[in-house]
Amino acid sequence: VGNISDKNTRLHIKSEIRVLGIDDSALLSDRIMIVGAVFRGGDWLDGVLRSEITRDGMDGTDTIIQMIKPSKHFVQLRVIMLDGITFGGFNPIDIVKLNEETGLPVVAIMRKYPDFEKIESALEYLPEPEKRMDIIKKAGKIAEVTTFADQRASPLYIQWAGLEEEDARRIVQQTSTRSNIPEPLRVAHLIATGIVFGESRGKA
Amino acid sequence: VGNISDKNTRLHIKSEIRVLGIDDSALLSDRIMIVGAVFRGGDWLDGVLRSEITRDGMDGTDTIIQMIKPSKHFVQLRVIMLDGITFGGFNPIDIVKLNEETGLPVVAIMRKYPDFEKIESALEYLPEPEKRMDIIKKAGKIAEVTTFADQRASPLYIQWAGLEEEDARRIVQQTSTRSNIPEPLRVAHLIATGIVFGESRGKA
Repeated sequence: VGNISDKNTRLHIKSEIRVLGIDDSALLSDRIMIVGAVFRGGDWLDGVLRSEITRDGMDGTDTIIQMIKPSKHFVQLRVIMLDGITFGGFNPIDIVKLNEETGLPVVAIMRKYPDFEKIESALEYLPEPEKRMDIIKKAGKIAEVTTFADQRASPLYIQWAGLEEEDARRIVQQTSTRSNIPEPLRVAHLIATGIVFGESRGKA
Repeated sequence: VGNISDKNTRLHIKSEIRVLGIDDSALLSDRIMIVGAVFRGGDWLDGVLRSEITRDGMDGTDTIIQMIKPSKHFVQLRVIMLDGITFGGFNPIDIVKLNEETGLPVVAIMRKYPDFEKIESALEYLPEPEKRMDIIKKAGKIAEVTTFADQRASPLYIQWAGLEEEDARRIVQQTSTRSNIPEPLRVAHLIATGIVFGESRGKA
């Protein structure tokens, strides 16, 4: 299980720590745009990455790795944040592999506690349902986090790989500067929806 | 001439004033993506708009008006900033019309003082060169602005419509929080290049 790996090291969280937040866009076709927002801490946008994955495919993990590693931002990045662990429908992101292949800690953020029974039934209609479920389960333990921005807001749920739970919590809290979700994910979502629909909408 | 219009009123510049920065993307095809970044002052991204204009066309002004007016952000916007007054090659943006039809002050920002002779020769190879040149000249007086972010940096050049020169200078300076160009334009540029090339590049 990813988030109890021996390789976890303590994360040094500076205020301008470079965080890449990745979100997907709407399911409008078979190719789904994914957007990465490179942030300095919770403060400002330093770069934008874009790639494409297959709707309900199995190429999400490798596509994200290929989007990140050749980027000029790669050497400065310290954390990857994902909007959940399935992108573009049920294209599962293997956060353990993503951590291993990039050397970067990964934190996946969810607004709701995942309903595994519902996910498992949905996967039955897709190829390789067991393989997808294995990747989803591999993300390990789920923790609840209340972000600093608004103590009254609903909590977030996180999964992580390559860092300690406490550090995963801290980086989520520290980057949630403008709302109750981390700024790199809020902005990746605004960009992804704005580009696809012509105007940004909703919440990451 | 736009920037000496009688209708100019003094602009009340609050720290969270909503500014829309618009930039175009690279000339990769005949349809050029334009991106609008809705900012709160120089601080944070509030929304993303996207539309498309014709390379070397004449549809830039109307497309920008149509991108802005139906937006949910429209009622909150107080200023429009443009990366220059020609988009997508030589598609000229009529800043006086843009101001009149949206009711919003417009500031166009350039990194270099425009070379009108060079522009005029280039326009000879396009349809309606006089009409394009008229739109470009209509933008009026050009002023030099040094932004606060780095006094040693090269100055910017601005043209404006629907506000006083002093207010145009102030809003450019006040929103240049992270670099020597206004944050709404810096971010619109990162998004436009990131989406088109897969990774953001260069300066607005």
